[in-house]
Amino acid sequence: MPKTLAELQTPSLILDRQKMQRNIDRMAARAKELGVPLRPHLKTPKSVHIAKHLQDAGAKGFNVSTLQEAEYFYEGGFDDLYYCVPFAPIKAARAAALAAKGCTLTLMTDSMEGVEACIAAAEAVGPATPLRFTLELDVDGYRCGMPWQGNDFIEAAQRLAASSATEFVGIMSYGGASYGKTPEGAAELTTTHLAALRDTASRLEAAGVPCEMISFGSSPAVLHSKSMEGVTEARCGIYTFQDLFQAGIGACAVDDIAVSVLTSVIARQPQHNRFVIDAGGMGLSKDRSTMGHPFDAQYGLVCDSVTGKPIGDLAVTTVSQEIGLVTSLSGKEVDLSAFEVGSTVRVLPNHADMTAAAYEDYFVVDGDDQIQAHWTRQNYWT
Amino acid sequence: MPKTLAELQTPSLILDRQKMQRNIDRMAARAKELGVPLRPHLKTPKSVHIAKHLQDAGAKGFNVSTLQEAEYFYEGGFDDLYYCVPFAPIKAARAAALAAKGCTLTLMTDSMEGVEACIAAAEAVGPATPLRFTLELDVDGYRCGMPWQGNDFIEAAQRLAASSATEFVGIMSYGGASYGKTPEGAAELTTTHLAALRDTASRLEAAGVPCEMISFGSSPAVLHSKSMEGVTEARCGIYTFQDLFQAGIGACAVDDIAVSVLTSVIARQPQHNRFVIDAGGMGLSKDRSTMGHPFDAQYGLVCDSVTGKPIGDLAVTTVSQEIGLVTSLSGKEVDLSAFEVGSTVRVLPNHADMTAAAYEDYFVVDGDDQIQAHWTRQNYWT
Repeated sequence: MPKTLAELQTPSLILDRQKMQRNIDRMAARAKELGVPLRPHLKTPKSVHIAKHLQDAGAKGFNVSTLQEAEYFYEGGFDDLYYCVPFAPIKAARAAALAAKGCTLTLMTDSMEGVEACIAAAEAVGPATPLRFTLELDVDGYRCGMPWQGNDFIEAAQRLAASSATEFVGIMSYGGASYGKTPEGAAELTTTHLAALRDTASRLEAAGVPCEMISFGSSPAVLHSKSMEGVTEARCGIYTFQDLFQAGIGACAVDDIAVSVLTSVIARQPQHNRFVIDAGGMGLSKDRSTMGHPFDAQYGLVCDSVTGKPIGDLAVTTVSQEIGLVTSLSGKEVDLSAFEVGSTVRVLPNHADMTAAAYEDYFVVDGDDQIQAHWTRQNYWT
Repeated sequence: MPKTLAELQTPSLILDRQKMQRNIDRMAARAKELGVPLRPHLKTPKSVHIAKHLQDAGAKGFNVSTLQEAEYFYEGGFDDLYYCVPFAPIKAARAAALAAKGCTLTLMTDSMEGVEACIAAAEAVGPATPLRFTLELDVDGYRCGMPWQGNDFIEAAQRLAASSATEFVGIMSYGGASYGKTPEGAAELTTTHLAALRDTASRLEAAGVPCEMISFGSSPAVLHSKSMEGVTEARCGIYTFQDLFQAGIGACAVDDIAVSVLTSVIARQPQHNRFVIDAGGMGLSKDRSTMGHPFDAQYGLVCDSVTGKPIGDLAVTTVSQEIGLVTSLSGKEVDLSAFEVGSTVRVLPNHADMTAAAYEDYFVVDGDDQIQAHWTRQNYWT
């Protein structure tokens, strides 16, 4: 086990535990202030070690983005898991097997035909306990969900409640459109979502299918909204790590970003005013979600390998599969003497989820270059 | 083991073996026509099963993009491996260990200081046999390499030859700039590279450091050039699978693309003229290298799950982590009756290397929906 960053093979994924804890505590405090239980998303960290930190900060349960995450986290001791992606019927047997082990696994679908397909698949499997289903509302057209104003929505809930293989447990919506908005815009969007959720919950209750779960999410929505009245839980994900996209929309500071890629300088090219690192599209991801932001670090912001602080305006401006080219965003001359071949830098990610998914483990530090722990991640789907 | 695509969990990576074999045969014939031995790149397939197909078609050896690929392929029976990324000194002990097992592992660096750093690292390790090093020429400023016209280049080779821990075995250049060029432009670029390589090889020979390897590559350069005179090998990678980027630059037809992602329809949204699949940024990658091409399928072109043929102009136009939204690129009405929840489609990738890296295995078909084999891949770095 390497003791310091200098002993690590490159590229490696580094997690600053202090920054992560600060992010976790801040969101826990925010949820407390809003008086809403928090259900953090595990699609970002994908590690039981990190789920433990979130649980210690008061998480009421977790979201997962794949059924495999649900299987992995249940094995790791976490038993209230919300797989909040429209459910693919081919996964019914796996979901039933996990529920049969004792996992409180909640699923989601978002149309009458989705309901029928899920019921048919569930009935074909014959689960030991009914599969728990929620329905998503399409409040703003951003991604998934079904129109919530009509009778279809009520009938879909009733169908889930009526089958012996499924159970209707509630509703959710996702304020993903908040990512493109100002803090005020995100708060306004939240108000619209909460009104739709409350209205739908009332109508469902009146129709004999009450909601145990009324779930709303997106990190910016929870950060900026003034109230979470009427929901039973708030869902947030990326805040655990944060990233340059989140910094770009004002949801965090660059100094809050808890994950980075440690990479070796493998060449210097004074003739092109740049140096070369052994992390490229594969190790940093090709996420360019910061494109169009006032500050856009291209494929990642380059930092000191020990302190984790940005070095001027150095960024990874070009990537090949395993190679990144680093230069100054403003075009000014780079002091290449500071970047000898064999020295290291760290790169902050545009989108932490995508970058972290390139690695099977984290090397954990506490603000310096001493490796405190080695935590595994769970990638893939099956 | 599932027998047909309909039994697979989604998303899964599908490899059409017939298309792959056609791609492999075509490039082997092209190399034969040019009279040059072919060294295919394994960074695309990352699987010993596929390396075997390439070897059967006459590969003289292979390129790898990481040291871990070298370790994996050597264990799999492939012993002539060229790790053609500027070498990070921290990897010297691993490289020496692999060479000591019997692997003909060739490394690369591209500056005088890279040479000194690599020699220092190699001498510190004290390898059983000298580490084999090549030098890259910076012919066109595209990515890596050192200026080749001056005496520095000769001295760098002599330094590698003089150390007992390293050996100088040759030179290489990469015609990556050919990806942005017409066939004529790619051929012209190749002529420039070959002249630089020949000139450098002559000067090195005259200086007492002859080249055993004179290596040139990039798939379009090899496809379009009229000669490979003076080089000992041609390097190509992506041709094994091909992808929408390669189709966009005319290096293949869409029908040649051998890998695709099988994904379930998880929702239909007539209100938005789209349907939803369970493959998003994580399962398709966020590579947008086709942006700006006359034909740009956004995050991937949607195909029939059995035949693998494109369905009109359906494409994945928006991705979240595990969700893709599919609609018609031209905006015309999508016949959603053909895409029931629970049915499947396949998605062709923009960049095969990036998409394949999201999976740990291939399900292999031969032009239909019958699964013929299940092949593992090797991802990550350590």
